[in-house]
Amino acid sequence: MEPGGRLNFLSFETDRIDECLDYMRRLKDKHLELNGHGNGSSRSTSDLCVMATGGGAYKFYDKIRDVLGVDVLREDEMECLIIGLDFFITEIPREVFTYSETNPMHFVEPAENVYPYLLVNIGSGVSFLKVSGPREYERVGGTSLGGGTLWGLLSLLTGARTFDEMLELASQGDNSKVDMLVGDIYGTDYGKIGLKSTTIASSFGKVFRKKRQAEQEAEDSGGQRHKDQHRPNHHHDEPQSPQSPDSPCQEDGPSPFSHDECRPFGAADISVSLLYAISNNIGQIAYLQSQIHELSHIYFGGSFIRGHPQTMNTLSYAIKFWSKGAKQAYFLRHEGYLGAVGAFLKRQPRNWGRRGSFDELPAVPLELRLRARRSSRDAGGATAAVEGNGGVRLNGTVNGTEAVVE
Amino acid sequence: MEPGGRLNFLSFETDRIDECLDYMRRLKDKHLELNGHGNGSSRSTSDLCVMATGGGAYKFYDKIRDVLGVDVLREDEMECLIIGLDFFITEIPREVFTYSETNPMHFVEPAENVYPYLLVNIGSGVSFLKVSGPREYERVGGTSLGGGTLWGLLSLLTGARTFDEMLELASQGDNSKVDMLVGDIYGTDYGKIGLKSTTIASSFGKVFRKKRQAEQEAEDSGGQRHKDQHRPNHHHDEPQSPQSPDSPCQEDGPSPFSHDECRPFGAADISVSLLYAISNNIGQIAYLQSQIHELSHIYFGGSFIRGHPQTMNTLSYAIKFWSKGAKQAYFLRHEGYLGAVGAFLKRQPRNWGRRGSFDELPAVPLELRLRARRSSRDAGGATAAVEGNGGVRLNGTVNGTEAVVE
Repeated sequence: MEPGGRLNFLSFETDRIDECLDYMRRLKDKHLELNGHGNGSSRSTSDLCVMATGGGAYKFYDKIRDVLGVDVLREDEMECLIIGLDFFITEIPREVFTYSETNPMHFVEPAENVYPYLLVNIGSGVSFLKVSGPREYERVGGTSLGGGTLWGLLSLLTGARTFDEMLELASQGDNSKVDMLVGDIYGTDYGKIGLKSTTIASSFGKVFRKKRQAEQEAEDSGGQRHKDQHRPNHHHDEPQSPQSPDSPCQEDGPSPFSHDECRPFGAADISVSLLYAISNNIGQIAYLQSQIHELSHIYFGGSFIRGHPQTMNTLSYAIKFWSKGAKQAYFLRHEGYLGAVGAFLKRQPRNWGRRGSFDELPAVPLELRLRARRSSRDAGGATAAVEGNGGVRLNGTVNGTEAVVE
Repeated sequence: MEPGGRLNFLSFETDRIDECLDYMRRLKDKHLELNGHGNGSSRSTSDLCVMATGGGAYKFYDKIRDVLGVDVLREDEMECLIIGLDFFITEIPREVFTYSETNPMHFVEPAENVYPYLLVNIGSGVSFLKVSGPREYERVGGTSLGGGTLWGLLSLLTGARTFDEMLELASQGDNSKVDMLVGDIYGTDYGKIGLKSTTIASSFGKVFRKKRQAEQEAEDSGGQRHKDQHRPNHHHDEPQSPQSPDSPCQEDGPSPFSHDECRPFGAADISVSLLYAISNNIGQIAYLQSQIHELSHIYFGGSFIRGHPQTMNTLSYAIKFWSKGAKQAYFLRHEGYLGAVGAFLKRQPRNWGRRGSFDELPAVPLELRLRARRSSRDAGGATAAVEGNGGVRLNGTVNGTEAVVE
């Protein structure tokens, strides 16, 4: 049988694990149908396995085994991440790119000698990994301010119910309504220390005062009706607030306040501010780590990025800003699948890969076409890789079937 | 007249600038009364001035001049900060301390040779300053995730209306209700990369799922009454959620959700999580900057700290954690007044200071007793220093009066 196949990628949010397993069960059934139960060998069922990595590999271990009735092989998350990344950046054309507003996807040719480099993996939290060679890496740092922080806070602060709703909101907001900019503090640039007036001095730095002011005004006007009878000049006695020209009523968007009629800022402004804050922060720490460990290349991966232009723009800007243009941020088309692909590859022989295969089809986003040169050990088997931290990601191939999983 | 005096410190939040100016006007009147209008000289009024620094020095410049009718001398914020800090750490005993849970205020002797060091100034935003010598400094970095972010987000997420209410809330919370810990992901330590099960993997990482789950349950039970008539076994058909043992109903505190009866976490949990997130992040960036610039001493100043034990504990922990115990965080009793004191000192001759004065009284928190050796230029004048970024801070002295301003 001619070896071959195609990798397909699919992701499920973590709490849709049951849908995910259901999908996998159907794939397994299809596989058994195609490869036959009674082919004179029981290999097709016994060779079938699920490669799993990330936190979900532990959390859902029993569940996956029970539902699918196949072996679950757990692989170390960081190792899988690195193996996956190495594979993508060394073997896959039109995979690695730099982002800029004028050229959102400038592809970089795959290179064989890429070490050492920094991998910033952004999931619920963030890990910074120094990669010195193939499968040779060290976790040099991390921050708890990651995707989980953004989604968690935005789910509390906005009406958005899905990640994509939040990103859509963020693309419509104006962060200067909630962020205190250098210009808000100094009225101008703070040139002496190199800060532009548009630089964010404090994320959400305007909120506390605006909110208190709105509440104050609500109380004042609420109490006014009673007070007026005794103190008709009440308002004239009060000193004018210096912030009064900065009216808190500017917007029609959804308001974070449940009790006021007057909206100083909306859900979209909050969303973009928090997106900037988290992305800038990750970019800054990435730059500092790259300085300490003398790494010139910084790759960003993980499920947080989701191909979202503002996120990539902010990360790119942060790297350029802090490195004074000396360094760039690199992204990957398959950013969310590094671990899953790494786990998948752990079942493949070392010489398996994309290189030397036909380039029969143009690259299609989120679909990676591969011809698999499979070893006899793997022939006839199917592998699905599952990565379960902050979403379940699947990829896999089944020998001989046109398009498989997962 | 015997030179002498005492510095007193007082702070007003920024939107109470009018109260602050009112207070200063009364001090000015008192000063004129004591030093006389008609003493044969007009020096006492014309020498009176306000030293101002920070953003407020620009924003409130006209206002201060108009209300007080005295000169306002604006001084560069960073320079004042450094001058103030230098003064405190080189001249004032029982000023600099390290924090630990067992010894919350371990004082460090003032030293003359302290350079170079890193100053982390935490106000609405955060600045990282490398100080190489007296009045010799460079801003090496900054982050917009500072005090303004904490107060802004907490004012939206909790019922708290003042900073101190928020800190009080934070001291009662349990961050593991909202933060995703390493143990939540792996069920154990992730020893291979040196992460304890209690390490925060993702700040607010549990919120998104818990909130969605609570909403789902509310919808399910809301819709149940109608559905039951047609599908009595509805609930039994549904796959059990793997998270169901982790009941969202655990707490009686105020809830961030306005519409549910069921509270997976409360305002206190949110407060402590955000306090940890911001403090840890500042601590981490401080450590990385200290590595890049080879600085062994890291001082924390600015109005954010407010003598709050959890904040100091988190900053200290972050420095120890990242430096593997090699570095410590240093704090100052007068953390919020560095800039104000620096501005004040710019009107003092270089040899003015605390050294050589009587140590007549034990140190009292937030009150710094000084004997001022005043030059003839300053004799009879009064100086108030105002610092106006994220709160107005005043300090000052008036010659000959026992306890003055401001």
